[in-house]
Amino acid sequence: MKLGFVGLGQMGFGMAANLIKAGHELSVYNRTAEKAAKLVALGARLSPTPADAARGAEAVVTMVADDKALEAVVFGPSGFLSTLPHGAVHVSASTISVAIAEKLTEAHHSASQYFVAAPVFGRPDAAAAAKLYVAAAGAPEALARVQPIFAAIGQRTFLLSDQPSAANLVKLSSNFLIASVIESLGEAVALVAKGGIEPEAYIELLTSTLFGAPVYKTYGGLIAEQKFSPPGFAAILGQKDVRLVLEAAETLNVPLPLASLLRDRFLALLAQPGGAALDWSAISTLARRDSGQ
Amino acid sequence: MKLGFVGLGQMGFGMAANLIKAGHELSVYNRTAEKAAKLVALGARLSPTPADAARGAEAVVTMVADDKALEAVVFGPSGFLSTLPHGAVHVSASTISVAIAEKLTEAHHSASQYFVAAPVFGRPDAAAAAKLYVAAAGAPEALARVQPIFAAIGQRTFLLSDQPSAANLVKLSSNFLIASVIESLGEAVALVAKGGIEPEAYIELLTSTLFGAPVYKTYGGLIAEQKFSPPGFAAILGQKDVRLVLEAAETLNVPLPLASLLRDRFLALLAQPGGAALDWSAISTLARRDSGQ
Amino acid sequence: MKLGFVGLGQMGFGMAANLIKAGHELSVYNRTAEKAAKLVALGARLSPTPADAARGAEAVVTMVADDKALEAVVFGPSGFLSTLPHGAVHVSASTISVAIAEKLTEAHHSASQYFVAAPVFGRPDAAAAAKLYVAAAGAPEALARVQPIFAAIGQRTFLLSDQPSAANLVKLSSNFLIASVIESLGEAVALVAKGGIEPEAYIELLTSTLFGAPVYKTYGGLIAEQKFSPPGFAAILGQKDVRLVLEAAETLNVPLPLASLLRDRFLALLAQPGGAALDWSAISTLARRDSGQ
Amino acid sequence: MKLGFVGLGQMGFGMAANLIKAGHELSVYNRTAEKAAKLVALGARLSPTPADAARGAEAVVTMVADDKALEAVVFGPSGFLSTLPHGAVHVSASTISVAIAEKLTEAHHSASQYFVAAPVFGRPDAAAAAKLYVAAAGAPEALARVQPIFAAIGQRTFLLSDQPSAANLVKLSSNFLIASVIESLGEAVALVAKGGIEPEAYIELLTSTLFGAPVYKTYGGLIAEQKFSPPGFAAILGQKDVRLVLEAAETLNVPLPLASLLRDRFLALLAQPGGAALDWSAISTLARRDSGQ
Repeated sequence: MKLGFVGLGQMGFGMAANLIKAGHELSVYNRTAEKAAKLVALGARLSPTPADAARGAEAVVTMVADDKALEAVVFGPSGFLSTLPHGAVHVSASTISVAIAEKLTEAHHSASQYFVAAPVFGRPDAAAAAKLYVAAAGAPEALARVQPIFAAIGQRTFLLSDQPSAANLVKLSSNFLIASVIESLGEAVALVAKGGIEPEAYIELLTSTLFGAPVYKTYGGLIAEQKFSPPGFAAILGQKDVRLVLEAAETLNVPLPLASLLRDRFLALLAQPGGAALDWSAISTLARRDSGQ
Repeated sequence: MKLGFVGLGQMGFGMAANLIKAGHELSVYNRTAEKAAKLVALGARLSPTPADAARGAEAVVTMVADDKALEAVVFGPSGFLSTLPHGAVHVSASTISVAIAEKLTEAHHSASQYFVAAPVFGRPDAAAAAKLYVAAAGAPEALARVQPIFAAIGQRTFLLSDQPSAANLVKLSSNFLIASVIESLGEAVALVAKGGIEPEAYIELLTSTLFGAPVYKTYGGLIAEQKFSPPGFAAILGQKDVRLVLEAAETLNVPLPLASLLRDRFLALLAQPGGAALDWSAISTLARRDSGQ
Repeated sequence: MKLGFVGLGQMGFGMAANLIKAGHELSVYNRTAEKAAKLVALGARLSPTPADAARGAEAVVTMVADDKALEAVVFGPSGFLSTLPHGAVHVSASTISVAIAEKLTEAHHSASQYFVAAPVFGRPDAAAAAKLYVAAAGAPEALARVQPIFAAIGQRTFLLSDQPSAANLVKLSSNFLIASVIESLGEAVALVAKGGIEPEAYIELLTSTLFGAPVYKTYGGLIAEQKFSPPGFAAILGQKDVRLVLEAAETLNVPLPLASLLRDRFLALLAQPGGAALDWSAISTLARRDSGQ
Repeated sequence: MKLGFVGLGQMGFGMAANLIKAGHELSVYNRTAEKAAKLVALGARLSPTPADAARGAEAVVTMVADDKALEAVVFGPSGFLSTLPHGAVHVSASTISVAIAEKLTEAHHSASQYFVAAPVFGRPDAAAAAKLYVAAAGAPEALARVQPIFAAIGQRTFLLSDQPSAANLVKLSSNFLIASVIESLGEAVALVAKGGIEPEAYIELLTSTLFGAPVYKTYGGLIAEQKFSPPGFAAILGQKDVRLVLEAAETLNVPLPLASLLRDRFLALLAQPGGAALDWSAISTLARRDSGQ
């Protein structure tokens, strides 16, 4: 396919590279052009603007930091809303709000284009290895058309709904689930540590028995070692995602007391000097501090 | 070894059978004697009282319902505190409170006996298959002596501390972690379901990606299907364990806001007609109800 | 003073009438002009637009429903940002967000005007009787200039800060305090009622002893009688104010667990058919429902 | 009446003195006898044991620290269960648990005596001035008989139920309400202080307007000044009362999320060095600390 690709961060770079490897023709755009050089070496064309990257494309994939960045590349002065051809598809792979997904759905529809939300599950290494999981939602004909994109970047695609924002809701909710694991481990470790048990031995026991999932191993390890820097995922981003979950829930009138607890934890962490830049698992330190340890 | 075994419920029966298979000599006691018949066929001796089961034993293993049942078989009129030989070991495999573990440690010490806490991880099928995990704590010489018991009932033993109650704290905390998973899934499903996503598809996505652990598969499935009866683990028992976690935490001055949330969820479930007898994962219905679904 | 007045709801009408009685010259604007007729009879001039009401005024007072309404009358096509004279003061008496107060401070400053936030405490009868309390914040010279306005509408003015939004923060926080009283009474009544005590007798005891403040009498009475319709202050507005408190707190990185609990309560109420239109004290029904009553 | 009086602390002393002034004949007991000297000067008889104080009495009033102290004076070796005459009344004015009230109801009934729970509202100065409020519950004939006692110590009596423990539940719930006020003020002050407002000015505004009740003045003042020592009511006692509320609620299956929050606050305070001895309003410092102030 002839594709535009916007956003060459840690995740986007690997995804774009896999699209090229799969034989697609890519025009890439990134705020800082250097990152694109290696892709150009693989055969990509460097676009000076998002608008240019989307011109003549069957689809444009975006993988940018947040709502604001996404609004800029779509609606901004050099955004691609005006250049993406009729009938072409905007595939948004970022973790964004439900509200912006709804806004984009409408805007692309008005421009006779399609919007597909396709947030991905996996870290940069999975992106590089084309092992992402894709949670996609949008109009069936659009989903069908961009299936080759999903095939090139991921190991499995879940088709969730014909309403694009549903996929964003699922992605946000899964980040809420991860943060919940962190909070529960933080409280459990605060308790057993004050009871005289070594956190490392405790996490070893948990992850060898009932809690063998990677999420427990990853975060259990960080919490036991109290190693929160450099961040794998910064607290400020964790706080943002919890906020987006709560906003989506508020729109739907869904009370989420555990998410509310997480919100308060993240704010307490952000209120500490340097807290925003720590790994989001650093909210676990609050349960320990509250217990006087 | 010459062993007493007290408590032949779903878990205890399998454990006792495996001890016999491993060549140990067992005197078994159960409140209702019929359950013991099959073990007698395997070679066990039926004891009329806990006191009798412990007489002359190197160790007595207890696997009973709760603190109260354990107090009865140890301190009651036909309890074994007075008959367990000097130097012999009481191995408690039940999920009990930290407070009762501390009381037993002292009582057995005063009687020149040992108390080892060895709560187990696993369900009845794991007990039958000798695949339990054992979290043990107690005096090193006592732990060494009962090692053959652990070897016969489980696939791996974790030695946690020389203070027996530490093992009970670990066991209780892990039940807290499971309940936390249930609550987080309950809230997430309430959110995405109100957003138009099928719970089954959502759970399938989660457990195929980041949340592959059995605990997510088991409880995610129950929550998606809303199948809470018959219970695998009744809400009334879940509430009891959360209470024991909170009591242990209170003694140590450890605030646990997520456990407090769970406490309130379980009480709300118990306040409903029939709620106590549902599976503990039925607390997930409360997030859905609160969202008007 | 020559004044504009925008927003003639239950509160605004009384305030405007008192300003006329105090001898000020008023140009009034309301979305629905009928409401203004009685004020015209008292000597007010009816303005067709907010812009017109502010033309030539020394100050314009706004008493509108929410942020959106306020933005419309200031920034909209017929808003008064362009007509309020240099050096004149916009006095905002509404309960609005901290964010919009900051936006208005900047916009009026850029237009060589002043912005004073002066939210009021009291209900419509207090507004009619000129018995409001005024919590004012803004540039000292502006506060000094509008002092006659405060004198005409209220019984006491508190000067809080030279930063206008501080007054809005105070007003929002006091609504949080009222909602906290409602929640605490809701839980207490759920408890004692299930313990066999008549809610009416309980509230009578509380308000005769330690809790004699009007807020306990008003809401205690509504909760005991379970009389939530017609609303004195609708749940949808309570939810909005709790949201504004949480948003202000989030900007400042201040965790507010009790406000988070209130947020969840209001969403649960709004999720019920008809819940949004009940009095905000109807969140108290949730504690009772959760206890199975 | 011929009365026994047990427990001459700050509260009990004033109550006993007022009973003497009202013409009753008192036998008083206190753990440390010196405290009784002044009462003896007023005409009281000093008893060497609780048992002795109750001998021949029509009623015995207890005003002791907690459940444990009360159990000791009733059931202990020199307790009065065995000496209080048939048909006589034990009036318990202390803040005790619902569970112990139920135990005492049964024990006194078995001994052909009456148990009346009559916890009092007010501080030592109100006790000295006979201005207490009495919340009484018990068998109507017993309540009628001890009416002169209530008349002598308080300004008003509320008859709540024929089940004594109901009065204890009411008393505990009112302490929960006070602690809720403290928490709400703590959060509100954390918010406005970080927003640049002086806590003193804020409290002055609140207590001059909507929140004029003594509870807001007392605790608002302490929180604004951050004056938590010496304690008016120590944090360790506040934690105990919140625990008793939660226990009573658990027995009745009543979830109390705000009480759960208070529980966690008190434990966090107790986990700090010296925290237990501070005034219970010191839980307000936690909201400020969590906000990075």
